[in-house]
Formats: sequence, C-alpha cells, structure tokens
Amino acid sequence: MQDNKKLVQEITSRDEDFAKWYTDIVLKADLVGYSGVKGCMVIRPYGYAIWENIQKLLDKRFKETGHENVYMPMFIPESLLNKEKDHIEGFAPEVAWVTHGGSEELTERLCVRPTSEVLFCEHYKQIISSYRDLPKLYNQWCSVVRWEKTTRPFLRSREFLWQEGHTAHATAEDATLETEKMLNVYSDFCAEDLNMPVIKGRKTESDKFAGAVATYCIEALMHDGKALQAGTTHYFGDGFAKAFDITYTTKENKLEYVHQSSWGVSTRLIGGIIMAHGDDSGLVLPPAVAPVQVVIIPVAQHKEGVLEKAKEIADKLEKAGWRVKLDDSDNSAGWKFSEYEMKGVPLRLEIGPKDIEQNQCVIVRRDNRIKTSVSLDSFEEAVKNLMKALADGIYEKSLENIKNRTYTCKNIDEINAALTQNGDGFVKAMWCGEEKCEDEVKEKTGAGSRCIPLEQEKTADTCVCCGKPQKHMVIWGKAY
Amino acid sequence: MQDNKKLVQEITSRDEDFAKWYTDIVLKADLVGYSGVKGCMVIRPYGYAIWENIQKLLDKRFKETGHENVYMPMFIPESLLNKEKDHIEGFAPEVAWVTHGGSEELTERLCVRPTSEVLFCEHYKQIISSYRDLPKLYNQWCSVVRWEKTTRPFLRSREFLWQEGHTAHATAEDATLETEKMLNVYSDFCAEDLNMPVIKGRKTESDKFAGAVATYCIEALMHDGKALQAGTTHYFGDGFAKAFDITYTTKENKLEYVHQSSWGVSTRLIGGIIMAHGDDSGLVLPPAVAPVQVVIIPVAQHKEGVLEKAKEIADKLEKAGWRVKLDDSDNSAGWKFSEYEMKGVPLRLEIGPKDIEQNQCVIVRRDNRIKTSVSLDSFEEAVKNLMKALADGIYEKSLENIKNRTYTCKNIDEINAALTQNGDGFVKAMWCGEEKCEDEVKEKTGAGSRCIPLEQEKTADTCVCCGKPQKHMVIWGKAY
Repeated sequence: MQDNKKLVQEITSRDEDFAKWYTDIVLKADLVGYSGVKGCMVIRPYGYAIWENIQKLLDKRFKETGHENVYMPMFIPESLLNKEKDHIEGFAPEVAWVTHGGSEELTERLCVRPTSEVLFCEHYKQIISSYRDLPKLYNQWCSVVRWEKTTRPFLRSREFLWQEGHTAHATAEDATLETEKMLNVYSDFCAEDLNMPVIKGRKTESDKFAGAVATYCIEALMHDGKALQAGTTHYFGDGFAKAFDITYTTKENKLEYVHQSSWGVSTRLIGGIIMAHGDDSGLVLPPAVAPVQVVIIPVAQHKEGVLEKAKEIADKLEKAGWRVKLDDSDNSAGWKFSEYEMKGVPLRLEIGPKDIEQNQCVIVRRDNRIKTSVSLDSFEEAVKNLMKALADGIYEKSLENIKNRTYTCKNIDEINAALTQNGDGFVKAMWCGEEKCEDEVKEKTGAGSRCIPLEQEKTADTCVCCGKPQKHMVIWGKAY
Repeated sequence: MQDNKKLVQEITSRDEDFAKWYTDIVLKADLVGYSGVKGCMVIRPYGYAIWENIQKLLDKRFKETGHENVYMPMFIPESLLNKEKDHIEGFAPEVAWVTHGGSEELTERLCVRPTSEVLFCEHYKQIISSYRDLPKLYNQWCSVVRWEKTTRPFLRSREFLWQEGHTAHATAEDATLETEKMLNVYSDFCAEDLNMPVIKGRKTESDKFAGAVATYCIEALMHDGKALQAGTTHYFGDGFAKAFDITYTTKENKLEYVHQSSWGVSTRLIGGIIMAHGDDSGLVLPPAVAPVQVVIIPVAQHKEGVLEKAKEIADKLEKAGWRVKLDDSDNSAGWKFSEYEMKGVPLRLEIGPKDIEQNQCVIVRRDNRIKTSVSLDSFEEAVKNLMKALADGIYEKSLENIKNRTYTCKNIDEINAALTQNGDGFVKAMWCGEEKCEDEVKEKTGAGSRCIPLEQEKTADTCVCCGKPQKHMVIWGKAY
C-alpha cells in the first residue's frame, strides 16, 4: 500500500454500528495503534497532538487558578496504599503489582499508581506544618494504570494519560470551594475549548470515589445517546488527613487537620470529542484542540502561480496564529478531501487557477460542508469568522442532541418507553435517595444514575421507583 | 517552623564536601522531596518548573527538526524485551517486573519500560511498508524505571523523567545523519539554554548502549571536576530492524530493512545545572530555564508608593515576557535575599523610597552579585542586558572550568600526577583502541574513558597505557 495512492476507505455508518464506527475512526484517523500489551494503546502523532493541545489549554487554566505542577513516584508501596481503608478497598482489585526488581524479589510489593492520593498525602505530611503553608494547590500530569477487564481506546484502557490535582486546605469550606471551582474549570474547558456542553452534578453515595466525602462530575452526551463521564472532582473532608496525620498549626496555635480535594480528567476526553462531534466521514475536531486547523489544498497545483499563492496564504495564516498544513503532495484532490475530513480538520481552503483569476479562494467547513467563496483580500478575517462559526455550530449541535435526547419521566415504565421509542439519552427523574431504588432503576431500565445535577428541577413529587417523596432530581442514562 | 520566620540555613561549602553541598541544595531550594519508595523522588513545584522549561525548549527544537510526539505503553511483555539479544542482556538486570494484575497472576511478566526501543520497533513494523513511509521521526516524553542500587536525586534514580527519540530511516546514511543532528540539538541546547558547554564524542565499544552500533554522547564537566554524561544518541544500523523484521519497499520495488536511531536526555540535566553553576549560596539558574527570572524586592515596602512602583515594574517586565515574582511578603529583606539566592533567581531588583526619589532601582546579578543602579526610564533594557550578561557569564565560567581542568597526559603516571595535583578533571590522552588498555587506565587512575571526542587532536604518538601506536584521542575522567 503506497501512501499517496491509499484511498480513504469507507467507515462503518455511525447510526448502523456506533461501536464499530468509533473503532474505525480511532484507527483510520491515525489516532491510535494497538500494542502487544493487552489493553494498552499506542497514541500516534495525530492523537497525541490532540492530547498536547488539551494539556496546554487545561494547564493554562490550572496555572491561572493558582496551581503548580509536581511529579510523584509511579510506585506505591502496599503498606502506603493500605492506609486509607475505603481507598484501598476501591482500588486494590484493579492495580498492577511489581514484585521483582531485576532478579531480586522485593521485600514489599509496589503497585503502579492507579491514582496518587496516598503519595500526595505522604508528601503533604512532610511539608505542611503551619496555616502559612496552606493552601497547597498541586497538580500532576502522568499516566496511571488500572487493570480493567474490557478495554477500548481512550474510553477504558489499562494505562491512560491524565492529570490529577491534589489540594490541601485549612478549612472544609476552602476545600469545598476548590472542588466546585475545578468542576467549573472542567466544564468551561469542555464548553469553550472542546465545544462539548456538559451537565455538572454530584455522584450518588454508591458512585463516589473510594475515600471521598463527595464526588462531583461533568457528564457529556454522546451522539448515540450514551453518557460519558468526562471529569470528576472529589471532596475528601479530613478523612485522608486523619489516616495520614496531616495537621497544621492555626494562627491561634491550635493543631487542626487539613481538608483535601482531588480532581482529574484523562485521554478519555479524546473519546468524548470523537463521539460528540464525529460523523460518517470521520472526526470533526474542535478548533481549539485540532492539530491542524486549516488545511490548504492547491487545485491544479502544476499550473503557474498556484503553489506560490497557496504558500503565501499558508504563511499569512500561520503568522495570524493558526495551525496550518499545506498539502502539496501528488495525491489527488479527492483523496486529500477525504483524508482531511477523516482527520476532522475544521477548515479546508481550496485555491486553484480560476480562483486566483477571480482573486478568491474557497473555504469549506468540516461540520456542515458549506462552501464559502472568499476574497483573497480578506481570507484571514473569513478564516477567523468561519472557525468561530464552526466552534459555535458543533457546540449548538451537541446541545441540541442533549435537548432532543433528554426525557422527563415519572416512573419506570415511562423510562423504558422513552428509551425504546427515542433511543438512549438522559432521563430526568426524581429519586427518594435510597440506594435500593437507584439499583432497581438501573436493573429495570439499563439506565444508571449519572449524577444529581447542581441545577435542580422538580419534575414530580415522588420517587421514580418507589413512589415515596422525592429528594433529588437525578439524571439517569447508559454510560461509557 | 513558620515560613516567614524560616531563616535560610547555611549549606555545606561546595569545596568542603561537594556531595553534601549537592544534597543540601536539592532539598533547601525545594527541588525534591524524599518519598517512601526507595530511590524514587518527589519533584517539587520549583524543581518541576525547571523541568517544564527544559521540556518546552527542547520540544520546540525537536519539532523544528521535524519530530512528532507519541505515547507508547509503559509495559513491555518479557517476550518482546527478549527479541534483541544485546538489548535484553543490557537491561534485564535492572528492570522492575509486574507479575500480578489485581489478584490474578499474569500469564506473562511485564517489565516497566527502562527504555522503549522494542515498543517503537513493534509499532514501526505495523506502520512502515513503503519508502514513502520514511523517515519516521518520533519522540516520547515519559518516565522510565531502572532498578539502580545506589541512587541520588536527579543524577541516578529508580524512576526518572526523560524524552526518548526513536527514528526509522531508509538508509544507514540517513540514520547516521539523524544521530549526529540530534547530538548537535542537545549540544546547542546545553550551550544556549543551560549555558553549559559540553564535549561531543563517541563512546568506546565497551560503553555503548545495549543494542547500538555506535553511541554518541555529550559530556559536561561539573564544578568538582567530575564528568556528567548529559545526553546520548545511538545509531542502531539495521540490528533492531532485523530482530523485529521492519522492512520497506524501495522505489525500485526491492525489500530493505530500515535503519534506526534513538536519543535521550533526562531530569539528570537538572543535576548538571546544579553542579555546573551552583555556589555556596545555592543554585545559579540559567535564565532560559529559571522558573523566576527576576525577583522584585520592595525595600521599606510600608512607605508610600513603594509597593505601587514595585508592582508597576513587575507588570512591565511581565509584559516584556520575563517570568517575574514580586515578593511583598512580610519576611525581612535579608531573608528574601538569601531565599532567592538559594533558589538561583538570575536577577534581583530592589526598589525602595530612596531609589524612587532618585528615579532608579538596583539590579543584582545572582552569579557575581554585582549591583547596578539603573534608571527607572530604562530598567527593561537593563534587565535584558544583564540577563544576557549573566547567561554569557556562567557559560564562560563553565568553559573556564573545563579549560583549567583539562590535562593532557602521555602516560599513566602523568594522569595520576595531574589528578592528584590539580584535582579531578578531563584527561586528554591517546588510546590504541584496545579494551584492555581502557580498563587498565580506569583501574590505575580512577578515570574511565568518557568519550572519543568528535574533534580529535593528536597529543602523542602512542597509547597512554601500552605504548603501542595510538588510534584515537580519548577524554578520560571520573563521572557521575
């Protein structure tokens, strides 16, 4: 197979087999390769470039909110992991254990971090002693390992890349505010940079992070109506502080425990981008994270002046700060169109001899394929406007998807009817607060509780399951 | 211990006990914390910020030379590691083995990557088929694990952060050129961004990377006269390609093996910065990687107008692109001076009521402590000039150290005499090319072969050890 002759192959239709469509895209858009290690993926240059852009934008938001990056060891001694009871119970079944260094058996097993709460706690105990040392607002970019049984690229893998924020505060209030602040940072990032609207909410007791007092999350809705948990923040109270004895002296010289939070998002976000925006021609990338934002395709590039003009346009757009690719390879224009549609490049700019004669070029939006003829005197302005229109457009489309696929239901029959008639989606329904009812809804409808949205509505007086008085509105749904 | 009253404690004198001086600095400049995992370090915010700056600058150089970032799994199945004979022999004794996932024993052990040649090879086999697919110029930023017996922060730890470039080329010539190009990228980076001159050379056969045809290196000289291998590049020929069956079809439709290279630098560079530039007051950071480049200390800051003026200066310097910290805490000026000297901040700008009266401020260089009074009308220009002068100054000082500590010797007695009289350093001496002599020199003088410099000189006709005809000039020395 020669690269320049490679035809962009048909991918499975999104509405026919969403799971296969997803796999086709991650492979054909060159995001991921399979490795010989079960459940671990190779993130290829195009996929990694998306992650680098996500990192850059999120890291900026973290630093603007006062956070600093650190790096903790990737290994956790078994005794350290065991220090917080709920935490170890949650994670022990899914960690990878290192038992040998070289040819020697270790005296204590080390697990490869599934998350780093205990390492941060151990460090905080060393460096925190006074109220003047607080807050500590640390973040770490790294990879973590969870020994999952079934895996899918980006969505669930044994190793994945993520960031984990870990903070320590003087009071419960400060730690709670941090948890809320970072939930907003995530939600703003998803909306503004990934053009993916999310619902902010709190997890139910049964769905909390191991060791947390409260877990908050952002839930996005994919094209197929399934939910994707796109990020979480956890309020720990002083549970970890007590287990690790992390205390500080107040201004009044009293000894108090710190209060902590943690929060994280991962390469899972790339899975979210694919499933929220992609279509039957491939990826549709949000401009803020697209490795290439404008691809320039010279038409009849052998004709005099075409390549020069294309190069001139590319230079100007690069100077204006866009990530630009000029494809002057000898592949056919048709091949190029398909290739960059598969790769989800937001704007395609075509320029040929006739365009040059008419002092214009053609810009095509990836999301709706609308072509606009643009004067060569103002193409920079046009790129700016069309890029914004695309970002707004895919956001609106995702929001529309949520609206169309959100069903308000009063009982289990209504849930089943709604999901059967309209397909998967978010179900809004009231809940009494009992775990028994939560389990029963999931069992009878397949839709689990996604979250208790921060923005509450009262759509009924009684629990969707038992009919007793309601306590919260819950969003239910099937999830990745 | 209250932060604001903490006194900057004396550190061990550099000339009295260099090893202890080093440890004092990494701890007291808040670069590193100890973790409960033997041989693994916590990289604290100030240390990690240096690494982030190194990453940013190197990554730019990599991308400018056409490289793309990827991410490979952190685990390598034992059978995959075993595929290239020399490679496994070199690394097997020092890898950490994962034997269990959750409660289940794995059917095949996985090692935590000590380096990722075999993973890249496995991937290259999948994605390379035609000459059109070449070259592949990939790089990865990650952490790797080597089960070292004795460890020191940054210099040798069981886990460390690094980047590893892995490339595949059509011809031996292309792969060789890449190896040389990246050696130059490293050397330019060390000189221009770390202000640390290095010697470029080739390793002897006995000192090559496991699996390489040739290993090149950059060697820096620390203040105490010991060498630090600061980076390496490896030419693999087609050895890995044959072991992994990585072939491509040429233009003429013939099947050929690819030729490969790899290259890496690590957090070890931070150790190099400390030991090349630091002094008895602490770190001296190269401006390009200093987390804070200018610290502004308001003097008598309670007096009217002082803080406002300090803030105004800080804003202007930030706008000019400098990383600036204004310390308006209630710590004493003396405490602040010591603290930022310990942290190696290149320039300290002092501004007090008298300065304001005279429309001036005082700028103090960290490296030589020279104070300059600067008009408030031109302080931005002054900062720019003094920053460059400091960068040049510490480079020159390091170069001077190499000159003063390079001894040209004709026999083993001369080496011993030079090292005894003048202290450790680089020894220039001719070598016949026999491993026996290389070993004998090390045994009798303590100085091993560091490299065969690319810039050769002929300082004698005969081997420094056996007296037979010489083949190469070698740089010998004790090393970290």
